[in-house]
Amino acid sequence: MSAASTREQRLAFVREFAQSSPYYQAMGTSLLELEEGRVLLRSGIQPSHMNAGGLLHGGVLPALADGAMGNALRTLNGEGAQILTAEMHLHYLRPVTSGSLLAEGRVVKSGRRLSFADVEIRDEESGATVARGSGVFIIEKKQP
Amino acid sequence: MSAASTREQRLAFVREFAQSSPYYQAMGTSLLELEEGRVLLRSGIQPSHMNAGGLLHGGVLPALADGAMGNALRTLNGEGAQILTAEMHLHYLRPVTSGSLLAEGRVVKSGRRLSFADVEIRDEESGATVARGSGVFIIEKKQP
Amino acid sequence: MSAASTREQRLAFVREFAQSSPYYQAMGTSLLELEEGRVLLRSGIQPSHMNAGGLLHGGVLPALADGAMGNALRTLNGEGAQILTAEMHLHYLRPVTSGSLLAEGRVVKSGRRLSFADVEIRDEESGATVARGSGVFIIEKKQP
Amino acid sequence: MSAASTREQRLAFVREFAQSSPYYQAMGTSLLELEEGRVLLRSGIQPSHMNAGGLLHGGVLPALADGAMGNALRTLNGEGAQILTAEMHLHYLRPVTSGSLLAEGRVVKSGRRLSFADVEIRDEESGATVARGSGVFIIEKKQP
Repeated sequence: MSAASTREQRLAFVREFAQSSPYYQAMGTSLLELEEGRVLLRSGIQPSHMNAGGLLHGGVLPALADGAMGNALRTLNGEGAQILTAEMHLHYLRPVTSGSLLAEGRVVKSGRRLSFADVEIRDEESGATVARGSGVFIIEKKQP
Repeated sequence: MSAASTREQRLAFVREFAQSSPYYQAMGTSLLELEEGRVLLRSGIQPSHMNAGGLLHGGVLPALADGAMGNALRTLNGEGAQILTAEMHLHYLRPVTSGSLLAEGRVVKSGRRLSFADVEIRDEESGATVARGSGVFIIEKKQP
Repeated sequence: MSAASTREQRLAFVREFAQSSPYYQAMGTSLLELEEGRVLLRSGIQPSHMNAGGLLHGGVLPALADGAMGNALRTLNGEGAQILTAEMHLHYLRPVTSGSLLAEGRVVKSGRRLSFADVEIRDEESGATVARGSGVFIIEKKQP
Repeated sequence: MSAASTREQRLAFVREFAQSSPYYQAMGTSLLELEEGRVLLRSGIQPSHMNAGGLLHGGVLPALADGAMGNALRTLNGEGAQILTAEMHLHYLRPVTSGSLLAEGRVVKSGRRLSFADVEIRDEESGATVARGSGVFIIEKKQP
Protein backbone atom coordinates (compact mmCIF):
# COMPACT_ATOMS: atom_id res chain seq x y z
CA MET A 1 0.00 0.00 0.00
CA SER A 2 1.51 3.28 -1.06
CA ALA A 3 2.04 5.45 1.97
CA ALA A 4 1.54 8.49 -0.20
CA SER A 5 -1.95 7.59 -1.40
CA THR A 6 -5.19 8.01 0.48
CA ARG A 7 -8.13 5.65 0.28
CA GLU A 8 -9.92 8.10 -2.00
CA GLN A 9 -6.94 8.38 -4.34
CA ARG A 10 -6.68 4.63 -4.61
CA LEU A 11 -10.36 4.08 -5.35
CA ALA A 12 -10.32 6.91 -7.89
CA PHE A 13 -7.31 5.29 -9.55
CA VAL A 14 -9.16 1.97 -9.88
CA ARG A 15 -12.21 3.69 -11.37
CA GLU A 16 -10.03 5.43 -13.93
CA PHE A 17 -7.97 2.28 -14.58
CA ALA A 18 -11.07 0.21 -15.31
CA GLN A 19 -12.71 2.87 -17.47
CA SER A 20 -9.61 3.42 -19.59
CA SER A 21 -8.73 -0.25 -20.04
CA PRO A 22 -8.82 -1.19 -23.74
CA TYR A 23 -9.50 -4.76 -22.75
CA TYR A 24 -12.52 -3.85 -20.63
CA GLN A 25 -13.93 -1.75 -23.43
CA ALA A 26 -13.49 -4.59 -25.92
CA MET A 27 -15.11 -7.03 -23.49
CA GLY A 28 -18.05 -4.82 -22.51
CA THR A 29 -16.95 -4.88 -18.89
CA SER A 30 -17.70 -2.13 -16.40
CA LEU A 31 -16.99 -1.48 -12.72
CA LEU A 32 -20.20 -1.54 -10.67
CA GLU A 33 -18.94 -1.31 -7.09
CA LEU A 34 -15.64 -0.85 -5.33
CA GLU A 35 -14.37 -0.55 -1.81
CA GLU A 36 -11.05 -1.36 -0.18
CA GLY A 37 -10.22 -4.95 -1.00
CA ARG A 38 -13.33 -5.69 -3.08
CA VAL A 39 -14.74 -4.84 -6.51
CA LEU A 40 -17.81 -5.90 -8.47
CA LEU A 41 -17.55 -6.01 -12.27
CA ARG A 42 -20.37 -6.46 -14.74
CA SER A 43 -19.97 -7.91 -18.20
CA GLY A 44 -22.74 -8.23 -20.73
CA ILE A 45 -22.33 -11.35 -22.83
CA GLN A 46 -21.76 -10.43 -26.45
CA PRO A 47 -22.01 -12.52 -29.62
CA SER A 48 -18.22 -12.32 -29.90
CA HIS A 49 -17.90 -14.12 -26.54
CA MET A 50 -19.43 -17.32 -27.85
CA ASN A 51 -17.63 -20.29 -29.29
CA ALA A 52 -18.77 -21.94 -32.49
CA GLY A 53 -20.96 -24.30 -30.44
CA GLY A 54 -23.15 -21.51 -29.05
CA LEU A 55 -21.73 -21.61 -25.53
CA LEU A 56 -19.76 -18.90 -23.76
CA HIS A 57 -16.11 -19.39 -24.68
CA GLY A 58 -14.16 -20.86 -21.77
CA GLY A 59 -11.79 -17.92 -21.88
CA VAL A 60 -14.33 -15.23 -21.02
CA LEU A 61 -14.77 -16.28 -17.39
CA PRO A 62 -11.05 -16.29 -16.49
CA ALA A 63 -10.66 -12.91 -18.19
CA LEU A 64 -13.42 -11.51 -16.02
CA ALA A 65 -11.99 -13.30 -12.98
CA ASP A 66 -8.55 -11.82 -13.51
CA GLY A 67 -9.99 -8.33 -13.90
CA ALA A 68 -12.04 -8.58 -10.72
CA MET A 69 -9.15 -9.88 -8.62
CA GLY A 70 -6.59 -7.48 -10.07
CA ASN A 71 -8.78 -4.47 -9.42
CA ALA A 72 -9.58 -5.63 -5.88
CA LEU A 73 -5.82 -5.57 -5.30
CA ARG A 74 -5.50 -2.15 -6.96
CA THR A 75 -7.90 -0.69 -4.37
CA LEU A 76 -5.20 -1.47 -1.77
CA ASN A 77 -2.13 -0.63 -3.80
CA GLY A 78 -3.21 2.35 -5.87
CA GLU A 79 -1.30 3.94 -8.69
CA GLY A 80 2.11 3.23 -7.19
CA ALA A 81 2.19 -0.46 -7.99
CA GLN A 82 1.72 -2.84 -10.88
CA ILE A 83 -0.36 -5.96 -10.25
CA LEU A 84 1.11 -8.97 -12.06
CA THR A 85 -0.87 -12.22 -12.17
CA ALA A 86 1.36 -15.15 -11.25
CA GLU A 87 -1.24 -17.88 -11.04
CA MET A 88 -4.95 -18.33 -11.66
CA HIS A 89 -7.35 -21.14 -10.92
CA LEU A 90 -11.00 -21.36 -11.92
CA HIS A 91 -13.83 -23.81 -11.43
CA TYR A 92 -16.61 -23.65 -14.01
CA LEU A 93 -19.78 -24.58 -12.14
CA ARG A 94 -22.50 -23.99 -14.73
CA PRO A 95 -22.50 -23.43 -18.51
CA VAL A 96 -23.44 -19.91 -19.61
CA THR A 97 -25.30 -19.11 -22.78
CA SER A 98 -26.53 -15.52 -22.58
CA GLY A 99 -27.34 -12.58 -20.33
CA SER A 100 -24.89 -10.70 -18.17
CA LEU A 101 -22.38 -11.70 -15.52
CA LEU A 102 -21.32 -10.18 -12.21
CA ALA A 103 -17.78 -10.87 -10.97
CA GLU A 104 -16.91 -10.12 -7.36
CA GLY A 105 -13.20 -10.02 -6.59
CA ARG A 106 -11.90 -9.90 -3.02
CA VAL A 107 -8.43 -9.67 -1.53
CA VAL A 108 -7.72 -12.70 0.65
CA LYS A 109 -4.25 -11.73 1.80
CA SER A 110 -2.26 -8.67 0.89
CA GLY A 111 1.35 -9.59 1.53
CA ARG A 112 4.76 -8.07 1.20
CA ARG A 113 5.89 -10.42 -1.55
CA LEU A 114 2.69 -12.04 -2.75
CA SER A 115 -0.99 -11.26 -2.60
CA PHE A 116 -3.89 -13.70 -2.83
CA ALA A 117 -7.39 -12.97 -4.07
CA ASP A 118 -10.53 -14.89 -4.90
CA VAL A 119 -13.47 -14.36 -7.21
CA GLU A 120 -17.05 -15.47 -7.66
CA ILE A 121 -18.90 -15.02 -10.93
CA ARG A 122 -22.70 -15.01 -10.91
CA ASP A 123 -25.40 -14.84 -13.51
CA GLU A 124 -26.89 -11.37 -13.04
CA GLU A 125 -30.50 -12.40 -13.60
CA SER A 126 -30.72 -15.65 -11.67
CA GLY A 127 -27.98 -14.96 -9.12
CA ALA A 128 -26.61 -18.48 -9.70
CA THR A 129 -22.88 -18.87 -9.21
CA VAL A 130 -21.36 -19.88 -12.54
CA ALA A 131 -17.66 -19.90 -11.60
CA ARG A 132 -15.36 -19.56 -8.60
CA GLY A 133 -11.65 -19.00 -8.62
CA SER A 134 -8.57 -17.60 -6.99
CA GLY A 135 -5.16 -16.27 -7.87
CA VAL A 136 -1.68 -15.33 -6.74
CA PHE A 137 -0.42 -11.87 -7.65
CA ILE A 138 2.90 -10.04 -7.47
CA ILE A 139 2.71 -6.43 -6.35
CA GLU A 140 5.50 -4.55 -8.10
CA LYS A 141 6.13 -1.11 -6.68
CA LYS A 142 6.74 1.43 -9.42
CA GLN A 143 9.92 3.45 -9.19
CA PRO A 144 9.06 7.04 -8.29
CA MET B 1 -14.41 -40.64 -29.62
CA SER B 2 -17.30 -40.93 -32.00
CA ALA B 3 -17.20 -44.30 -33.70
CA ALA B 4 -18.86 -42.77 -36.71
CA SER B 5 -16.21 -40.15 -37.38
CA THR B 6 -12.89 -40.69 -39.07
CA ARG B 7 -9.69 -38.91 -38.18
CA GLU B 8 -10.10 -36.69 -41.25
CA GLN B 9 -13.65 -35.75 -40.29
CA ARG B 10 -12.60 -34.83 -36.79
CA LEU B 11 -9.67 -32.67 -37.89
CA ALA B 12 -11.84 -30.97 -40.51
CA PHE B 13 -14.43 -30.25 -37.81
CA VAL B 14 -11.81 -28.58 -35.61
CA ARG B 15 -10.56 -26.45 -38.52
CA GLU B 16 -14.10 -25.32 -39.24
CA PHE B 17 -14.91 -24.83 -35.55
CA ALA B 18 -11.88 -22.59 -35.01
CA GLN B 19 -12.45 -20.57 -38.18
CA SER B 20 -16.10 -19.92 -37.42
CA SER B 21 -15.65 -19.08 -33.73
CA PRO B 22 -16.79 -15.52 -33.03
CA TYR B 23 -14.47 -15.41 -30.07
CA TYR B 24 -11.43 -16.40 -32.10
CA GLN B 25 -12.23 -13.78 -34.69
CA ALA B 26 -12.59 -11.10 -32.02
CA MET B 27 -9.32 -12.19 -30.41
CA GLY B 28 -7.29 -12.44 -33.62
CA THR B 29 -6.66 -16.12 -32.99
CA SER B 30 -6.00 -18.66 -35.72
CA LEU B 31 -5.27 -22.37 -35.88
CA LEU B 32 -1.72 -23.04 -37.13
CA GLU B 33 -1.33 -26.78 -36.69
CA LEU B 34 -3.49 -29.70 -35.64
CA GLU B 35 -3.14 -33.43 -35.28
CA GLU B 36 -4.89 -35.97 -33.09
CA GLY B 37 -4.60 -34.80 -29.50
CA ARG B 38 -2.65 -31.61 -30.23
CA VAL B 39 -3.24 -28.16 -31.70
CA LEU B 40 -1.15 -25.02 -32.10
CA LEU B 41 -2.94 -21.66 -32.00
CA ARG B 42 -1.48 -18.27 -32.88
CA SER B 43 -2.75 -14.98 -31.49
CA GLY B 44 -1.38 -11.60 -32.47
CA ILE B 45 -1.47 -9.21 -29.53
CA GLN B 46 -3.82 -6.34 -30.26
CA PRO B 47 -4.18 -2.94 -28.57
CA SER B 48 -7.51 -4.16 -27.15
CA HIS B 49 -5.68 -6.94 -25.28
CA MET B 50 -3.78 -4.52 -23.06
CA ASN B 51 -4.77 -3.30 -19.65
CA ALA B 52 -4.56 0.37 -18.75
CA GLY B 53 -1.01 -0.18 -17.48
CA GLY B 54 0.34 -1.20 -20.90
CA LEU B 55 0.70 -4.89 -20.10
CA LEU B 56 -1.18 -7.77 -21.64
CA HIS B 57 -4.41 -8.22 -19.68
CA GLY B 58 -4.22 -11.26 -17.43
CA GLY B 59 -7.33 -12.66 -19.07
CA VAL B 60 -5.87 -13.05 -22.55
CA LEU B 61 -3.59 -15.95 -21.68
CA PRO B 62 -6.28 -18.15 -20.07
CA ALA B 63 -8.58 -17.45 -23.01
CA LEU B 64 -5.89 -18.66 -25.39
CA ALA B 65 -5.12 -21.58 -23.07
CA ASP B 66 -8.74 -22.69 -22.98
CA GLY B 67 -9.00 -22.51 -26.76
CA ALA B 68 -5.87 -24.58 -27.30
CA MET B 69 -6.88 -27.29 -24.82
CA GLY B 70 -10.51 -27.42 -25.98
CA ASN B 71 -9.54 -27.81 -29.60
CA ALA B 72 -6.95 -30.47 -28.78
CA LEU B 73 -9.84 -32.42 -27.22
CA ARG B 74 -12.06 -31.74 -30.23
CA THR B 75 -9.52 -33.50 -32.48
CA LEU B 76 -10.36 -36.71 -30.57
CA ASN B 77 -14.08 -36.16 -30.10
CA GLY B 78 -15.16 -34.49 -33.31
CA GLU B 79 -18.53 -33.00 -34.04
CA GLY B 80 -20.44 -35.47 -31.91
CA ALA B 81 -19.49 -34.00 -28.54
CA GLN B 82 -19.44 -30.72 -26.69
CA ILE B 83 -16.31 -29.88 -24.72
CA LEU B 84 -17.16 -28.18 -21.41
CA THR B 85 -14.37 -26.67 -19.33
CA ALA B 86 -14.74 -27.74 -15.68
CA GLU B 87 -11.46 -26.39 -14.31
CA MET B 88 -8.51 -24.36 -15.50
CA HIS B 89 -5.17 -23.57 -13.94
CA LEU B 90 -2.49 -21.26 -15.32
CA HIS B 91 0.98 -20.15 -14.28
CA TYR B 92 2.11 -16.82 -15.70
CA LEU B 93 5.86 -17.13 -16.12
CA ARG B 94 6.80 -13.89 -17.89
CA PRO B 95 4.98 -10.59 -18.53
CA VAL B 96 3.98 -9.97 -22.15
CA THR B 97 3.89 -6.55 -23.76
CA SER B 98 3.66 -7.03 -27.53
CA GLY B 99 4.20 -9.36 -30.46
CA SER B 100 2.39 -12.62 -31.03
CA LEU B 101 1.79 -15.75 -28.99
CA LEU B 102 1.75 -19.45 -29.82
CA ALA B 103 -0.38 -21.75 -27.66
CA GLU B 104 0.17 -25.49 -27.85
CA GLY B 105 -2.62 -27.58 -26.35
CA ARG B 106 -2.24 -31.31 -25.79
CA VAL B 107 -4.57 -34.01 -24.48
CA VAL B 108 -3.08 -35.62 -21.37
CA LYS B 109 -5.84 -38.15 -20.75
CA SER B 110 -9.01 -38.72 -22.70
CA GLY B 111 -11.38 -40.42 -20.32
CA ARG B 112 -14.88 -41.72 -20.26
CA ARG B 113 -16.14 -39.17 -17.75
CA LEU B 114 -13.39 -36.55 -17.67
CA SER B 115 -10.57 -35.48 -19.93
CA PHE B 116 -7.36 -33.71 -18.96
CA ALA B 117 -5.26 -31.43 -21.15
CA ASP B 118 -2.30 -29.12 -20.76
CA VAL B 119 -1.06 -26.04 -22.57
CA GLU B 120 2.13 -24.08 -23.08
CA ILE B 121 2.09 -20.51 -24.38
CA ARG B 122 5.24 -19.13 -25.98
CA ASP B 123 6.32 -15.79 -27.37
CA GLU B 124 6.46 -16.39 -31.12
CA GLU B 125 9.57 -14.31 -31.74
CA SER B 126 11.78 -15.32 -28.82
CA GLY B 127 10.35 -18.78 -28.22
CA ALA B 128 10.28 -18.05 -24.47
CA THR B 129 7.54 -19.80 -22.52
CA VAL B 130 5.24 -17.15 -21.06
CA ALA B 131 2.61 -19.38 -19.45
CA ARG B 132 1.85 -23.02 -18.70
CA GLY B 133 -1.43 -24.48 -17.63
CA SER B 134 -3.79 -27.40 -17.54
CA GLY B 135 -7.49 -28.13 -17.34
CA VAL B 136 -10.24 -30.64 -16.68
CA PHE B 137 -12.95 -31.00 -19.30
CA ILE B 138 -16.30 -32.77 -19.55
CA ILE B 139 -17.02 -34.46 -22.86
CA GLU B 140 -20.75 -34.30 -23.44
CA LYS B 141 -21.95 -36.54 -26.24
CA LYS B 142 -24.56 -34.83 -28.38
CA GLN B 143 -27.82 -36.65 -28.86
CA PRO B 144 -28.10 -37.87 -32.45
CA MET C 1 -27.21 -38.94 -3.26
CA SER C 2 -28.29 -42.48 -2.62
CA ALA C 3 -32.06 -42.68 -2.54
CA ALA C 4 -31.81 -45.58 -0.13
CA SER C 5 -29.88 -43.73 2.55
CA THR C 6 -31.25 -41.31 5.08
CA ARG C 7 -29.45 -38.26 6.38
CA GLU C 8 -28.65 -40.12 9.60
CA GLN C 9 -27.23 -43.10 7.74
CA ARG C 10 -25.03 -40.88 5.64
CA LEU C 11 -23.64 -38.92 8.59
CA ALA C 12 -23.05 -42.14 10.54
CA PHE C 13 -21.20 -43.53 7.54
CA VAL C 14 -18.89 -40.50 7.44
CA ARG C 15 -18.19 -40.77 11.17
CA GLU C 16 -17.28 -44.41 10.77
CA PHE C 17 -15.29 -43.77 7.59
CA ALA C 18 -13.18 -41.08 9.25
CA GLN C 19 -12.60 -43.09 12.41
CA SER C 20 -11.52 -46.20 10.55
CA SER C 21 -9.28 -44.46 8.03
CA PRO C 22 -5.70 -45.69 8.38
CA TYR C 23 -4.48 -42.43 6.91
CA TYR C 24 -6.36 -40.33 9.46
CA GLN C 25 -4.99 -42.40 12.29
CA ALA C 26 -1.44 -42.03 10.97
CA MET C 27 -1.94 -38.28 10.56
CA GLY C 28 -3.58 -37.67 13.94
CA THR C 29 -6.69 -36.37 12.24
CA SER C 30 -10.16 -36.52 13.77
CA LEU C 31 -13.66 -35.45 12.75
CA LEU C 32 -14.95 -32.61 14.98
CA GLU C 33 -18.19 -31.59 13.32
CA LEU C 34 -20.33 -32.77 10.45
CA GLU C 35 -23.58 -31.83 8.84
CA GLU C 36 -24.93 -32.27 5.32
CA GLY C 37 -22.42 -30.74 2.94
CA ARG C 38 -19.89 -29.65 5.57
CA VAL C 39 -17.32 -31.21 7.89
CA LEU C 40 -14.72 -29.86 10.30
CA LEU C 41 -11.53 -31.88 10.80
CA ARG C 42 -8.87 -31.34 13.43
CA SER C 43 -5.25 -32.36 13.06
CA GLY C 44 -2.61 -31.94 15.74
CA ILE C 45 0.77 -31.19 14.20
CA GLN C 46 3.19 -33.98 14.97
CA PRO C 47 7.00 -34.08 14.74
CA SER C 48 6.61 -36.40 11.75
CA HIS C 49 4.76 -33.64 9.88
CA MET C 50 7.77 -31.36 9.76
CA ASN C 51 10.35 -31.08 7.02
CA ALA C 52 14.05 -31.02 7.81
CA GLY C 53 13.90 -27.22 7.99
CA GLY C 54 11.51 -27.19 10.96
CA LEU C 55 8.45 -26.07 9.00
CA LEU C 56 5.27 -28.02 8.40
CA HIS C 57 5.83 -30.14 5.29
CA GLY C 58 3.98 -28.70 2.32
CA GLY C 59 2.17 -32.00 1.87
CA VAL C 60 0.31 -31.98 5.18
CA LEU C 61 -2.07 -29.19 4.25
CA PRO C 62 -3.29 -30.72 0.97
CA ALA C 63 -3.76 -34.05 2.73
CA LEU C 64 -5.96 -32.38 5.30
CA ALA C 65 -7.71 -30.39 2.58
CA ASP C 66 -8.51 -33.50 0.59
CA GLY C 67 -9.87 -35.25 3.66
CA ALA C 68 -12.12 -32.35 4.58
CA MET C 69 -13.54 -31.96 1.07
CA GLY C 70 -13.96 -35.68 0.49
CA ASN C 71 -15.85 -36.17 3.73
CA ALA C 72 -18.06 -33.15 3.07
CA LEU C 73 -19.05 -34.92 -0.16
CA ARG C 74 -19.56 -38.21 1.67
CA THR C 75 -22.21 -36.56 3.88
CA LEU C 76 -24.30 -36.16 0.70
CA ASN C 77 -23.45 -39.43 -1.00
CA GLY C 78 -23.17 -41.88 1.85
CA GLU C 79 -21.94 -45.43 1.65
CA GLY C 80 -23.25 -46.03 -1.83
CA ALA C 81 -20.59 -44.03 -3.64
CA GLN C 82 -16.85 -43.67 -3.85
CA ILE C 83 -15.43 -40.16 -3.89
CA LEU C 84 -12.49 -39.87 -6.28
CA THR C 85 -10.40 -36.69 -6.27
CA ALA C 86 -9.85 -35.47 -9.84
CA GLU C 87 -8.21 -32.13 -9.10
CA MET C 88 -6.99 -30.18 -6.12
CA HIS C 89 -5.79 -26.61 -5.73
CA LEU C 90 -4.38 -25.01 -2.59
CA HIS C 91 -3.09 -21.58 -1.60
CA TYR C 92 -0.67 -21.53 1.32
CA LEU C 93 -1.32 -18.23 3.08
CA ARG C 94 0.88 -18.49 6.19
CA PRO C 95 3.71 -20.82 7.25
CA VAL C 96 2.84 -23.23 10.06
CA THR C 97 5.29 -24.40 12.69
CA SER C 98 3.33 -26.01 15.51
CA GLY C 99 -0.03 -26.37 17.24
CA SER C 100 -3.14 -27.82 15.71
CA LEU C 101 -5.14 -27.16 12.56
CA LEU C 102 -8.84 -27.05 11.78
CA ALA C 103 -9.95 -27.85 8.23
CA GLU C 104 -13.47 -26.95 7.15
CA GLY C 105 -14.64 -28.63 3.97
CA ARG C 106 -17.82 -27.57 2.20
CA VAL C 107 -19.65 -28.84 -0.87
CA VAL C 108 -19.92 -26.07 -3.48
CA LYS C 109 -21.83 -28.01 -6.09
CA SER C 110 -22.99 -31.57 -5.99
CA GLY C 111 -23.46 -32.59 -9.60
CA ARG C 112 -24.47 -35.60 -11.57
CA ARG C 113 -21.07 -36.09 -13.15
CA LEU C 114 -18.77 -33.88 -11.09
CA SER C 115 -18.84 -32.34 -7.66
CA PHE C 116 -16.98 -29.26 -6.45
CA ALA C 117 -15.89 -28.49 -2.90
CA ASP C 118 -13.76 -25.95 -1.11
CA VAL C 119 -11.75 -25.92 2.08
CA GLU C 120 -10.32 -23.47 4.57
CA ILE C 121 -7.60 -24.47 7.03
CA ARG C 122 -7.14 -22.41 10.17
CA ASP C 123 -4.72 -22.41 13.06
CA GLU C 124 -6.80 -23.66 15.97
CA GLU C 125 -5.30 -21.34 18.56
CA SER C 126 -5.14 -18.06 16.68
CA GLY C 127 -7.97 -18.67 14.24
CA ALA C 128 -5.77 -17.37 11.41
CA THR C 129 -6.45 -18.87 8.00
CA VAL C 130 -3.33 -20.73 6.89
CA ALA C 131 -4.58 -22.22 3.62
CA ARG C 132 -7.55 -22.15 1.26
CA GLY C 133 -8.29 -24.52 -1.53
CA SER C 134 -10.81 -26.27 -3.71
CA GLY C 135 -11.23 -29.46 -5.67
CA VAL C 136 -13.11 -31.39 -8.32
CA PHE C 137 -14.39 -34.83 -7.40
CA ILE C 138 -15.95 -37.75 -9.26
CA ILE C 139 -18.81 -39.48 -7.48
CA GLU C 140 -18.72 -43.13 -8.48
CA LYS C 141 -21.83 -45.05 -7.54
CA LYS C 142 -20.99 -48.47 -6.19
CA GLN C 143 -22.63 -51.42 -7.85
CA PRO C 144 -25.23 -52.93 -5.53
CA MET D 1 21.18 -19.58 -5.98
CA SER D 2 23.67 -18.98 -3.24
CA ALA D 3 26.88 -17.58 -4.69
CA ALA D 4 28.79 -19.25 -1.90
CA SER D 5 27.61 -22.79 -2.64
CA THR D 6 28.91 -25.08 -5.34
CA ARG D 7 26.79 -27.54 -7.27
CA GLU D 8 28.20 -30.38 -5.16
CA GLN D 9 27.35 -28.60 -1.92
CA ARG D 10 23.80 -27.99 -3.05
CA LEU D 11 23.18 -31.55 -4.15
CA ALA D 12 24.71 -32.89 -0.93
CA PHE D 13 22.42 -30.58 1.03
CA VAL D 14 19.33 -31.96 -0.74
CA ARG D 15 20.45 -35.56 -0.10
CA GLU D 16 20.89 -34.78 3.58
CA PHE D 17 17.65 -32.76 3.74
CA ALA D 18 15.61 -35.61 2.25
CA GLN D 19 17.22 -38.29 4.42
CA SER D 20 16.70 -36.36 7.64
CA SER D 21 13.13 -35.27 6.93
CA PRO D 22 10.76 -36.65 9.57
CA TYR D 23 7.95 -36.44 7.08
CA TYR D 24 9.79 -38.49 4.46
CA GLN D 25 10.63 -41.13 7.00
CA ALA D 26 7.00 -41.32 8.13
CA MET D 27 5.84 -41.54 4.51
CA GLY D 28 8.40 -44.12 3.37
CA THR D 29 9.77 -41.69 0.81
CA SER D 30 13.32 -41.76 -0.47
CA LEU D 31 15.38 -39.75 -2.95
CA LEU D 32 16.33 -41.87 -5.98
CA GLU D 33 17.94 -39.36 -8.33
CA LEU D 34 18.92 -35.72 -8.25
CA GLU D 35 20.57 -33.23 -10.53
CA GLU D 36 20.36 -29.46 -10.81
CA GLY D 37 16.70 -28.56 -11.20
CA ARG D 38 15.34 -32.11 -11.04
CA VAL D 39 14.77 -34.85 -8.48
CA LEU D 40 13.14 -38.26 -8.53
CA LEU D 41 11.48 -39.50 -5.33
CA ARG D 42 10.18 -42.99 -4.62
CA SER D 43 7.42 -43.79 -2.17
CA GLY D 44 6.22 -47.28 -1.36
CA ILE D 45 2.50 -47.31 -0.68
CA GLN D 46 1.85 -48.33 2.90
CA PRO D 47 -1.34 -49.51 4.61
CA SER D 48 -1.43 -46.16 6.46
CA HIS D 49 -1.72 -44.36 3.10
CA MET D 50 -5.10 -45.84 2.33
CA ASN D 51 -8.48 -44.36 3.08
CA ALA D 52 -11.23 -46.45 4.61
CA GLY D 53 -12.45 -47.34 1.10
CA GLY D 54 -9.23 -49.16 0.17
CA LEU D 55 -7.94 -46.49 -2.21
CA LEU D 56 -4.84 -44.34 -1.80
CA HIS D 57 -5.84 -41.32 0.26
CA GLY D 58 -6.09 -38.22 -1.92
CA GLY D 59 -3.58 -36.47 0.30
CA VAL D 60 -0.65 -38.79 -0.40
CA LEU D 61 -0.12 -37.63 -3.97
CA PRO D 62 0.07 -33.89 -3.20
CA ALA D 63 2.44 -34.64 -0.32
CA LEU D 64 4.74 -36.49 -2.69
CA ALA D 65 4.29 -33.76 -5.31
CA ASP D 66 5.26 -31.03 -2.89
CA GLY D 67 8.34 -32.94 -1.80
CA ALA D 68 9.51 -33.54 -5.36
CA MET D 69 9.04 -29.91 -6.41
CA GLY D 70 10.53 -28.46 -3.22
CA ASN D 71 13.64 -30.60 -3.49
CA ALA D 72 14.07 -29.80 -7.18
CA LEU D 73 14.19 -26.13 -6.10
CA ARG D 74 16.62 -26.94 -3.27
CA THR D 75 19.11 -28.29 -5.83
CA LEU D 76 19.35 -24.73 -7.17
CA ASN D 77 19.14 -22.84 -3.90
CA GLY D 78 21.05 -25.03 -1.45
CA GLU D 79 21.27 -24.57 2.25
CA GLY D 80 21.08 -20.80 2.14
CA ALA D 81 17.37 -20.57 1.40
CA GLN D 82 14.05 -21.84 2.65
CA ILE D 83 11.55 -23.06 0.07
CA LEU D 84 8.00 -22.03 0.97
CA THR D 85 5.10 -23.46 -1.01
CA ALA D 86 2.68 -20.68 -2.00
CA GLU D 87 0.41 -22.63 -4.30
CA MET D 88 -0.08 -26.19 -5.48
CA HIS D 89 -2.23 -27.73 -8.17
CA LEU D 90 -2.67 -31.41 -8.93
CA HIS D 91 -4.58 -33.49 -11.45
CA TYR D 92 -5.36 -37.05 -10.39
CA LEU D 93 -5.30 -39.08 -13.60
CA ARG D 94 -5.70 -42.64 -12.35
CA PRO D 95 -6.72 -44.20 -9.00
CA VAL D 96 -3.91 -45.93 -7.12
CA THR D 97 -4.41 -49.00 -4.96
CA SER D 98 -0.99 -50.50 -4.23
CA GLY D 99 2.65 -50.73 -5.26
CA SER D 100 5.13 -47.89 -5.32
CA LEU D 101 5.18 -44.43 -6.85
CA LEU D 102 7.87 -42.36 -8.55
CA ALA D 103 7.59 -38.57 -8.40
CA GLU D 104 9.70 -36.48 -10.74
CA GLY D 105 9.95 -32.80 -9.79
CA ARG D 106 11.45 -30.24 -12.15
CA VAL D 107 12.10 -26.51 -11.87
CA VAL D 108 10.20 -24.63 -14.58
CA LYS D 109 11.39 -21.14 -13.71
CA SER D 110 13.73 -20.07 -10.96
CA GLY D 111 12.96 -16.41 -10.37
CA ARG D 112 14.09 -13.63 -8.12
CA ARG D 113 10.77 -13.38 -6.29
CA LEU D 114 8.94 -16.56 -7.23
CA SER D 115 9.88 -19.95 -8.57
CA PHE D 116 7.70 -22.36 -10.53
CA ALA D 117 8.02 -26.14 -10.66
CA ASP D 118 6.08 -29.08 -11.99
CA VAL D 119 5.77 -32.72 -11.09
CA GLU D 120 4.73 -36.01 -12.62
CA ILE D 121 3.88 -39.04 -10.50
CA ARG D 122 4.06 -42.48 -12.08
CA ASP D 123 3.28 -46.00 -10.97
CA GLU D 124 6.72 -47.62 -10.63
CA GLU D 125 5.72 -50.99 -12.03
CA SER D 126 3.56 -50.02 -14.98
CA GLY D 127 5.10 -46.62 -15.70
CA ALA D 128 1.60 -45.14 -16.02
CA THR D 129 1.26 -41.49 -15.05
CA VAL D 130 -1.10 -41.27 -12.08
CA ALA D 131 -0.90 -37.54 -11.36
CA ARG D 132 0.53 -34.30 -12.76
CA GLY D 133 0.85 -31.02 -10.99
CA SER D 134 2.66 -27.76 -10.55
CA GLY D 135 3.36 -25.17 -7.88
CA VAL D 136 4.52 -21.67 -7.02
CA PHE D 137 7.23 -21.33 -4.42
CA ILE D 138 8.82 -18.47 -2.49
CA ILE D 139 12.58 -18.67 -2.08
CA GLU D 140 13.45 -17.06 1.23
CA LYS D 141 17.14 -16.38 1.67
CA LYS D 142 18.30 -17.22 5.16
CA GLN D 143 20.10 -14.49 7.05
CA PRO D 144 23.80 -15.34 7.36
